[in-house]
Amino acid sequence: MYTFKELQEIVNSRIDELEIGKNPAELYNPIRYILDAGGKRMRPVLVLAAYNLFSDNVEAAIEPALAMEVFHNFTLLHDDLMDKADVRRNQATVHKKWNDNIAILSGDAMMIKAYQLIVKAPAKNLAETIELFNQTALEVCEGQQYDMNFENRMDVSEDEYIEMIRLKTSVLVAACLKVGALCADANKEDAKKIYDFGLNLGLAFQLQDDYLDTYGNPKTFGKKIGGDIVANKKTYMLIKAQELAKGEQAHLLHKLITEKNTDQESKITAITHIYNELNIKKLVKDKMNYYYQLALDAFNKVNVESNKKTMLIELADKLMVRES
Amino acid sequence: MYTFKELQEIVNSRIDELEIGKNPAELYNPIRYILDAGGKRMRPVLVLAAYNLFSDNVEAAIEPALAMEVFHNFTLLHDDLMDKADVRRNQATVHKKWNDNIAILSGDAMMIKAYQLIVKAPAKNLAETIELFNQTALEVCEGQQYDMNFENRMDVSEDEYIEMIRLKTSVLVAACLKVGALCADANKEDAKKIYDFGLNLGLAFQLQDDYLDTYGNPKTFGKKIGGDIVANKKTYMLIKAQELAKGEQAHLLHKLITEKNTDQESKITAITHIYNELNIKKLVKDKMNYYYQLALDAFNKVNVESNKKTMLIELADKLMVRES
Repeated sequence: MYTFKELQEIVNSRIDELEIGKNPAELYNPIRYILDAGGKRMRPVLVLAAYNLFSDNVEAAIEPALAMEVFHNFTLLHDDLMDKADVRRNQATVHKKWNDNIAILSGDAMMIKAYQLIVKAPAKNLAETIELFNQTALEVCEGQQYDMNFENRMDVSEDEYIEMIRLKTSVLVAACLKVGALCADANKEDAKKIYDFGLNLGLAFQLQDDYLDTYGNPKTFGKKIGGDIVANKKTYMLIKAQELAKGEQAHLLHKLITEKNTDQESKITAITHIYNELNIKKLVKDKMNYYYQLALDAFNKVNVESNKKTMLIELADKLMVRES
Repeated sequence: MYTFKELQEIVNSRIDELEIGKNPAELYNPIRYILDAGGKRMRPVLVLAAYNLFSDNVEAAIEPALAMEVFHNFTLLHDDLMDKADVRRNQATVHKKWNDNIAILSGDAMMIKAYQLIVKAPAKNLAETIELFNQTALEVCEGQQYDMNFENRMDVSEDEYIEMIRLKTSVLVAACLKVGALCADANKEDAKKIYDFGLNLGLAFQLQDDYLDTYGNPKTFGKKIGGDIVANKKTYMLIKAQELAKGEQAHLLHKLITEKNTDQESKITAITHIYNELNIKKLVKDKMNYYYQLALDAFNKVNVESNKKTMLIELADKLMVRES
């Protein structure tokens, strides 16, 4: 069994070697730039780790693993443009470093690159792998659209929010694990369970992301703390705060998220103060743990010796205590 | 053998039936909108016509044919956004009717839809079909990037221009024909020849497009006449005019394409006048015919009874005398 670190190193070295294309430079350099910016490589590691539950030679799943990482980075590239985000992983986003058109087109090329990699999955379950990839890719787009729609709405419910993050984040985590299982020719039942593991882990992961945006460590978070608050992003935190705030507090919260000219730092401080008063920190942690438990329940049912599962359980644990 | 009109009707009815997805509406409605705007359906008809050279039941190639049409419309959707074009097929472009973000994301979803269709090609040559699709899709992105790069350059050569339109337009026409041949399990040599037919036909087609933008019939062209001139697009016409204009004429041309505040109509009139003086009309027609002849030469070598080839030759002829 490989360790997380070993799989991460395999992924990183294969990303370094990945042929991206040269000309025109404006098309291909942004792809290399965003892939070189690093990140945890969580998704490709999940593919390889899931593969490794059932089979030894993870090399057979490396290209599908890279496909998931390239696809994920493609979504970051286009999402950052749509969200007008300036910084990602402590470096300028592609549309800031180059321009909007280059971000659109190099993103398009990047999605095609992801397809070039996913079709190299083992022949045995290739059709199902590609179908899963297509389905997941569409769902991720749906999630991003819902997320954008929520920006102009003040009445997003908790259920709508969970559905949005399921689409935008969780299905890709789930698909990574299932792709690994399919590459290893795992049985249908196990492939389904490992997908459920990923789906719930992804929900917990995104709730942790919401949490970190307000309560993360500015030194390790990689983005500005309070970015979601400034952007009035309908996070789990804000939705619960809107639901629970009463009287004067509700009035103040409404004022803070509707007024255009509030100073950013004051807004972050004031809304964080309301979160603290309402103990939103505990609510988000509870919800996170709820999905985390569902994830572990599903994973426990995967029919593999428990010693082989240690690495993925440790990885899941780590995702829940991460700082960035 | 099917006629062009019959194949067009098959394509249109299958596009009508195509399941696009419902929610979120902001993601899927623009896809339906752009597909419903019509167009000649040239690319999917080429897939079916090429298939029909070698085999009768064109139904077997319908999904790959639709894949090419969906992909083509995806490129139009993103290109119109990048080019800030307001009108396409006499209706508002997606980013004008909705907004930029919706154009980016529904375009992304549309590309995924194209993949959902291409993977339904017959199993026999599926791997080669997908590889061709991936390669072509990347080349189309490269062509669009070169086209955008040319906007900021005054020294684009004829060769660079031909390479750009090869990538941006011709490879997709060529791929359509080859996909049809692969679906029909044609032999490698014929598949290669039919690709070359498409590649040269695509070059002739794009040169015709350049021609029509200046000399087309305003009533049938579907876009504003002179749009390329206003945008200083480095078309074959402009490149040849820059190459051939001398003295006062060269000075005037340079002034017209560098001055910012010229009235659009005056600019179109003045540059068209220079084209007329230099007989650019003949040059572009000659170049078009040169590629058209190469296309026919390649097609003649495809090993199929000549009576089966009539429809594609008539179609190619029609593309050369079209008005929109």
